[in-house]
Amino acid sequence: MRQTLALGIDFGSLSGRVLLVDLTSGETRSVVTIPYNHGFLEQALPDQAEMLPPDWALQDPADYLDVLRLGIPQALAKAKAGPDDVLGIGLAFTASTVMPVKRDGTPLSQLPGLRANKHAYVKAWKHHAAQPEATQITEAAIARGEPFLQRYGGSISAEWLFPKIWQLLKEAPEVYEAMDRFIEAGDWVVWQLTGRETRNSCAAGYKAFWDRRSGYPAPDFFTSLDSRLSGVVDEKLTRTVHQTGTRAGMLTPSAARMTGLKPGTPVAVALVDAHAAVPACGITESGQLLMIMGTSTCHLLLSETERSIKGICGVVENGIMPGYFGYEAGQPCVGDLFDWFVRHALPGSYLDRASERGVSVYQILREDAGQQKPGAHGLVALDWWNGNRSVLDNGELSGLLLGMTPATRPADLYRALIEATAFGTRLILDQYTGAGLPVNAVFACGGIARKDPLLMQVYSDVLRKTIHVAHSDQAVALGAALYGAVAAGPLSGGFPDIKTAARAVPRPPSAVYHPDASSADLYDRLYAEYQVLHDLFGRDMPDIMRRLKAIRLAAASDRGYKE
Amino acid sequence: MRQTLALGIDFGSLSGRVLLVDLTSGETRSVVTIPYNHGFLEQALPDQAEMLPPDWALQDPADYLDVLRLGIPQALAKAKAGPDDVLGIGLAFTASTVMPVKRDGTPLSQLPGLRANKHAYVKAWKHHAAQPEATQITEAAIARGEPFLQRYGGSISAEWLFPKIWQLLKEAPEVYEAMDRFIEAGDWVVWQLTGRETRNSCAAGYKAFWDRRSGYPAPDFFTSLDSRLSGVVDEKLTRTVHQTGTRAGMLTPSAARMTGLKPGTPVAVALVDAHAAVPACGITESGQLLMIMGTSTCHLLLSETERSIKGICGVVENGIMPGYFGYEAGQPCVGDLFDWFVRHALPGSYLDRASERGVSVYQILREDAGQQKPGAHGLVALDWWNGNRSVLDNGELSGLLLGMTPATRPADLYRALIEATAFGTRLILDQYTGAGLPVNAVFACGGIARKDPLLMQVYSDVLRKTIHVAHSDQAVALGAALYGAVAAGPLSGGFPDIKTAARAVPRPPSAVYHPDASSADLYDRLYAEYQVLHDLFGRDMPDIMRRLKAIRLAAASDRGYKE
Repeated sequence: MRQTLALGIDFGSLSGRVLLVDLTSGETRSVVTIPYNHGFLEQALPDQAEMLPPDWALQDPADYLDVLRLGIPQALAKAKAGPDDVLGIGLAFTASTVMPVKRDGTPLSQLPGLRANKHAYVKAWKHHAAQPEATQITEAAIARGEPFLQRYGGSISAEWLFPKIWQLLKEAPEVYEAMDRFIEAGDWVVWQLTGRETRNSCAAGYKAFWDRRSGYPAPDFFTSLDSRLSGVVDEKLTRTVHQTGTRAGMLTPSAARMTGLKPGTPVAVALVDAHAAVPACGITESGQLLMIMGTSTCHLLLSETERSIKGICGVVENGIMPGYFGYEAGQPCVGDLFDWFVRHALPGSYLDRASERGVSVYQILREDAGQQKPGAHGLVALDWWNGNRSVLDNGELSGLLLGMTPATRPADLYRALIEATAFGTRLILDQYTGAGLPVNAVFACGGIARKDPLLMQVYSDVLRKTIHVAHSDQAVALGAALYGAVAAGPLSGGFPDIKTAARAVPRPPSAVYHPDASSADLYDRLYAEYQVLHDLFGRDMPDIMRRLKAIRLAAASDRGYKE
Repeated sequence: MRQTLALGIDFGSLSGRVLLVDLTSGETRSVVTIPYNHGFLEQALPDQAEMLPPDWALQDPADYLDVLRLGIPQALAKAKAGPDDVLGIGLAFTASTVMPVKRDGTPLSQLPGLRANKHAYVKAWKHHAAQPEATQITEAAIARGEPFLQRYGGSISAEWLFPKIWQLLKEAPEVYEAMDRFIEAGDWVVWQLTGRETRNSCAAGYKAFWDRRSGYPAPDFFTSLDSRLSGVVDEKLTRTVHQTGTRAGMLTPSAARMTGLKPGTPVAVALVDAHAAVPACGITESGQLLMIMGTSTCHLLLSETERSIKGICGVVENGIMPGYFGYEAGQPCVGDLFDWFVRHALPGSYLDRASERGVSVYQILREDAGQQKPGAHGLVALDWWNGNRSVLDNGELSGLLLGMTPATRPADLYRALIEATAFGTRLILDQYTGAGLPVNAVFACGGIARKDPLLMQVYSDVLRKTIHVAHSDQAVALGAALYGAVAAGPLSGGFPDIKTAARAVPRPPSAVYHPDASSADLYDRLYAEYQVLHDLFGRDMPDIMRRLKAIRLAAASDRGYKE
């Protein structure tokens, strides 16, 4: 029987999800979620070996292997499929999630002598303790006029690879010395599967200053940062970068034993998790934008045109799909914002009503907030609870609510927060179109996109765009599987390239939202007020939020309570 | 036996409180509260005779007589006292709470032909439907350079007498025609007790443009507003105004029968409720400021100096105490703000904790919020949920919260709201001292002052002032009783003047709060941020809040829910 299944793995923040898709029908045959045993290490190392400073977020690479060892056999069993049915494997991973390893791939955190050293562990994407290094890199790149900086909207994030490796060098030179390679965890997993070290162009492009034409920044840039970094690329990384959408290698016999798959099964080059969702949503054209909406939102745009856009996180040629420049932007507090509101600012009567009716509290909020006309609450919010990643790129900004009266009700505040995130998205779209990159069609995936029709309608009205919501609720894992099918290639029942896979496999949208013209007109007026506040607190006087944060941090050690 | 009791009545917003105080011991012998049968008429007239438009707030004068008829006998009984024990009566009333009556004092709302006419009723202080008239009066006074405007900080409130009588004239000329007098409800109650029409200098001064030297504005000012108003003072008011602190008359036999008191008992000229609290707190000196803290806060300052201060509600010579200029300012949303927060923005876990321990939810909030150092929450708020009465005098302003992060907790928001009201008070004090009026000592009375030690300590720290909290929890009624003792005079066992009474009767403070220097230093930094936001949204760009209110009102008719 002909192989028809592709296997995709979405290595997320707290768990890995293994998915099997039938390439002929587009049907998802099974999904298995394996939580990471250690989640994020934010307070202490395993066994309390060492307490961690603020802003640290580590992971244990053993947890990733559990996903392979436990999740793949379970997914096969659930799909009633065998190793022969799987024609290819792909995986997508959070980034920059990076780790020090020995030449043979052994993580330093598994060496007895380094088990208690925090710098031996995986630094997860949300490890923000390298902010000083990120700031210094931005300043040095500006001072030297480094051209790579333009591809990142003029600012380097603490989440990326070089701030993290530099922090490691500064704080633990013995670990820097002991490691042979510093590698994205996604590439490390591919290495475990294939026995080959590869570096994927997607993470290298978006998170490590690499460009397919110019490569990495020159050694003298790194020397200007720290003389010990002069050889960092050649000594700890590699200049060989593999294009996403190609094959990394074949499953080794030992990896086949671990996973229950067949030796020799093709494995795709890894890629960044959000980016894998693009083909899973059927996106293949220039001008198509995807919003991946969860605790935060990531905006990915395909375009035939290269532009440097201030305040956009990154642009990488072929970064999302071969043949296009891939643009990435983000809002760091979306689902997190609603979660904060429900936990810390919503009266108990809402939970009571929800439990009486056996529905979620969001359902009650949606019903209340959905009854009002745009603007009826008289509120405008700035959605900066986690700072602003795009367009202002300032982590010291914070949230704002304006317009409250004694008549303001919880559903009013909830709706204003939804609108604030929609206005933030509109600003990002305006930034794209203002730079000459048209946004012709908007797609959405992720939990919020599928579960919150009020929010999606607000977004459609605010953006004046039709929004197509992905059919799959596992778009990242599905996209990873499509990359697995491309790694297999057409002769094995897969596809010649990701664009072909994206056109063949994904199912039609699960929902389509059309803008309402009269609501859109009302939102134009509120958006104008949002822009006034955005520019005021983001550009003209950002110092007030910075000063408040400084006052807070100075006093915070004396805040005696958590809840 | 010598008479030793004075009787005071505090006619508040929703009830009247009758108090008997022993003048020799200072002991309050009894307090009786009589709720108004109709409260505020805000939705409809009694018997649903007519539905009321937005911003209307009427009262039925029959409710005031119930306080006399029911409350005074109950207070006597509770104190185990008889009519012979009461040497004088005083009363304080909300203002401007005004009503149309016939020449004999009969309220127009009691005439069968006018019972269904909304303009025949008492327009309570919080009736805000005369805002267009207030705005026109301010504009006309500015255009004509009317000197009286300076005594009101440059702006006329819709709550005052002339906007209300003008609205009545414009909307119901037949009622204007039918009424012989338009009178403060406090003066009307004194009329019912004494059989004499008097007008008190306190309400006339603070709410009706009257000044002891220049009297009312000239007729041509009123003509410039509306030709039909040219004779308003002589036709509907009177130029005879009685000084607060004097005797209005003696109890008539019929009033004695109604109240159970002795005919001939002296009755004081009425005064505005807040102002009666001043002597009850023992305030008798220039530079002493009283905060009357409830749903809103009123700030009253005695000074030997006359100044016109922008943004201060009013200054009246002898208005609070003979021999001093009395200054009044206010914050319209204090207790109301915390009530809003607890009802509409506080998670149920706080109520659960409160009910588990059998304490108020405010107690739980105070315990949580009290643990942190000033500034630890990183928040600043503007306390303008009900607009700003002083210093900006703009009812279109609204609330603001700034600085939220995912780590922000309910007690943080609560503390930020407390601080915002304290900063608002500091701005008012700064306005006084900046105009050359020193504030030497701060006193407080009202429910919040007595019940919320966290809030009072925050105020003390923010203001860098020692605050003395009144012993009495009925300062207005006690002060009214002191005016009753002054009306009786020293020969009858009372006092020659209110200053003497204020020095003799009130007991020492129930609590004294001293500023903590290190907290005060931290608050200086937060206050600087509050001032930035205050000036930004109150002065430089108040239009954003005005526009949001306009958008809200335009859309509000379509908001389908209340809660």
